[in-house]
Amino acid sequence: MTKNRLEAFSDGMFAIILTVLVLELQVPHLENNTLAVFVGAMSGLLPKLLSFVFSFFIIAIFWVNHHHIVHQIEKVDAKLLWLNNALLFFACLFPFLTAFIGDYPTNPFVVALYPINMALSSMVLSAFWKHAFVNTTLAPNKLTQAQKQKRIRQDGMSTAINLFAAALAFVWVPITLVIITVMPLLFVVPEFLSNKTEALQE
Amino acid sequence: MTKNRLEAFSDGMFAIILTVLVLELQVPHLENNTLAVFVGAMSGLLPKLLSFVFSFFIIAIFWVNHHHIVHQIEKVDAKLLWLNNALLFFACLFPFLTAFIGDYPTNPFVVALYPINMALSSMVLSAFWKHAFVNTTLAPNKLTQAQKQKRIRQDGMSTAINLFAAALAFVWVPITLVIITVMPLLFVVPEFLSNKTEALQE
Amino acid sequence: MTKNRLEAFSDGMFAIILTVLVLELQVPHLENNTLAVFVGAMSGLLPKLLSFVFSFFIIAIFWVNHHHIVHQIEKVDAKLLWLNNALLFFACLFPFLTAFIGDYPTNPFVVALYPINMALSSMVLSAFWKHAFVNTTLAPNKLTQAQKQKRIRQDGMSTAINLFAAALAFVWVPITLVIITVMPLLFVVPEFLSNKTEALQE
Amino acid sequence: MTKNRLEAFSDGMFAIILTVLVLELQVPHLENNTLAVFVGAMSGLLPKLLSFVFSFFIIAIFWVNHHHIVHQIEKVDAKLLWLNNALLFFACLFPFLTAFIGDYPTNPFVVALYPINMALSSMVLSAFWKHAFVNTTLAPNKLTQAQKQKRIRQDGMSTAINLFAAALAFVWVPITLVIITVMPLLFVVPEFLSNKTEALQE
Repeated sequence: MTKNRLEAFSDGMFAIILTVLVLELQVPHLENNTLAVFVGAMSGLLPKLLSFVFSFFIIAIFWVNHHHIVHQIEKVDAKLLWLNNALLFFACLFPFLTAFIGDYPTNPFVVALYPINMALSSMVLSAFWKHAFVNTTLAPNKLTQAQKQKRIRQDGMSTAINLFAAALAFVWVPITLVIITVMPLLFVVPEFLSNKTEALQE
Repeated sequence: MTKNRLEAFSDGMFAIILTVLVLELQVPHLENNTLAVFVGAMSGLLPKLLSFVFSFFIIAIFWVNHHHIVHQIEKVDAKLLWLNNALLFFACLFPFLTAFIGDYPTNPFVVALYPINMALSSMVLSAFWKHAFVNTTLAPNKLTQAQKQKRIRQDGMSTAINLFAAALAFVWVPITLVIITVMPLLFVVPEFLSNKTEALQE
Repeated sequence: MTKNRLEAFSDGMFAIILTVLVLELQVPHLENNTLAVFVGAMSGLLPKLLSFVFSFFIIAIFWVNHHHIVHQIEKVDAKLLWLNNALLFFACLFPFLTAFIGDYPTNPFVVALYPINMALSSMVLSAFWKHAFVNTTLAPNKLTQAQKQKRIRQDGMSTAINLFAAALAFVWVPITLVIITVMPLLFVVPEFLSNKTEALQE
Repeated sequence: MTKNRLEAFSDGMFAIILTVLVLELQVPHLENNTLAVFVGAMSGLLPKLLSFVFSFFIIAIFWVNHHHIVHQIEKVDAKLLWLNNALLFFACLFPFLTAFIGDYPTNPFVVALYPINMALSSMVLSAFWKHAFVNTTLAPNKLTQAQKQKRIRQDGMSTAINLFAAALAFVWVPITLVIITVMPLLFVVPEFLSNKTEALQE
């Protein structure tokens, strides 16, 4: 098992998961060609559409993070391989949870499942990183002890925020929905606006 | 994130989007084995079939254009990566819009959505190109100022035509359908007949 | 557009088309846990299952043939690219036609569509080969004139057999079904039994 | 046909098969937002969810085993190619069998189909290995006669266990379900806990 195979396989799965999301968007029924009927149908589709949008970017972020990590790894061992499979397992659940939240956006149990799966995915991705950068020498040891601890703290924080968002669903569902929707923006927008034109590739 | 990963990931998504299109083609119900029933069923399938055909070639054209651009790029930065993800996001919507137009080919709102999504995809692809060739040095700076302005004008024109086609749906739906169907032919046929046998590769 | 991209993209599409075939296999309804009910349900599933089996191997054969050709090609031009897209277009129709034949295995019109699509795919693959090996120098010119003519004759024969099989559906449907089922075996079995252990790769 | 193409194609198919599994998870119907309704719905989903989980890891194991073999192969011949296609054929059936077992977890005939397909897949993978390592020189001849015989015995054992698990479904269905669920754990957990940090790649 080389690193390239793990990369190509994970890429394939992330690409399919992203595309499968759109299969949940069912064509609505339209009684006639009036604007009112169209607007009504599209409003009914809105929860599905919104959950498609934020899921697309959440999974895209997981993909980007996954690759930033794998890019720096030089070797693959059996444990890393199965941590990767575990990550893909939780990633595979997103299309189902996206459809679920699209159908029941006001149900706290359903809405809470989503950030819980994000927390589990974050935990596995963090374990994946830790295995490569801290516990083994699969990645070249360039980070200081302080940098490693900072990263572990950040990953823990990310998991905690997701679990907290899940808990908030039982206080007031919309808070959780707002957190899920805004979090990917908080990640993508700064990167997009940063004007850091230095290339990611060496 | 290397250029190869971005290419492979985008290839994967375009391939899946093209294949997912065919999932919208549902087997029709046939009462008996007569020609009349078969022709009737296939006629009923015609809007779905036609929307499958032109969507297939429209997405294939986006894929070809995407690769002509990426082929010349040498480096990838965070902004380009997220412009690429945005392009794939709009590309992902095509199977849904194809099914929608297949079900309601006479509804101006539904039909208009399709060229609007084409306009949005064109705009993102144009921003993608501009970021690599004009705003940064991700692609080698071989184009003259005049060539760059010509390309930007062409991309703007393409977006304008799509938005105009969307507007025309509210005048007479068939015009928009004809434009959507004919536009990919206008792109593919000349390339096909050109007899330019010089290889695209280096 | 490099040859590798065309290969990877086509591989991706063939892989997805093969997997999408299985989505047509719906879980049957079982009244109870008796053998009789199980056998009844599986018998009802048989046309779907059989059409899945032969479609899987027919598409696999197209994939293998496609790669034997592309393997020897050194360059790609615009025409070859669009002939490839046309081939993938017809390949994409197989899951739909497989489901159709699985639902109406006694309907001559439905059954005839399948070999017609095989004929169209064969014709495009033949044009693809001819463009690379005869009309251009995309593939190195190693074949004699006689070899080229033999190949063109064989491809024409293959198309003719498929069209003939389509016509036979209107005489007696089972003949066509047998031809579709047996043809892939005639291709795969000799290769499998040949014991030619020389590697395909140089 | 080079080894890389066979690898990439198989990777693609395994990735799609794994993702297609999740399509079988349908969003349940929830009457209201109470815990009782949610727990009831999720309990109803449990067989589907469990069959998704063990299928995911069973297919992942097949993928890992497939690559351990292909990694050591240096050449590909026609027979190996078609053994690979046969393996992918049986792998493709898993999503259907997973959905089937998820719908009828108490039906011995349905439950038995699953380990039978595992036995068939194991047999083909074993023939694949044997063709490359014993009957031909596609893989470099590094193994002793004893090692080869051990591997053939192990593969035979694996097939036998699966057929035995299938037979047990007619004694008491839960035994078979437990075997199917526990077997992947018996494979993954030791690898995971082994702390063998030596990289798999050279």
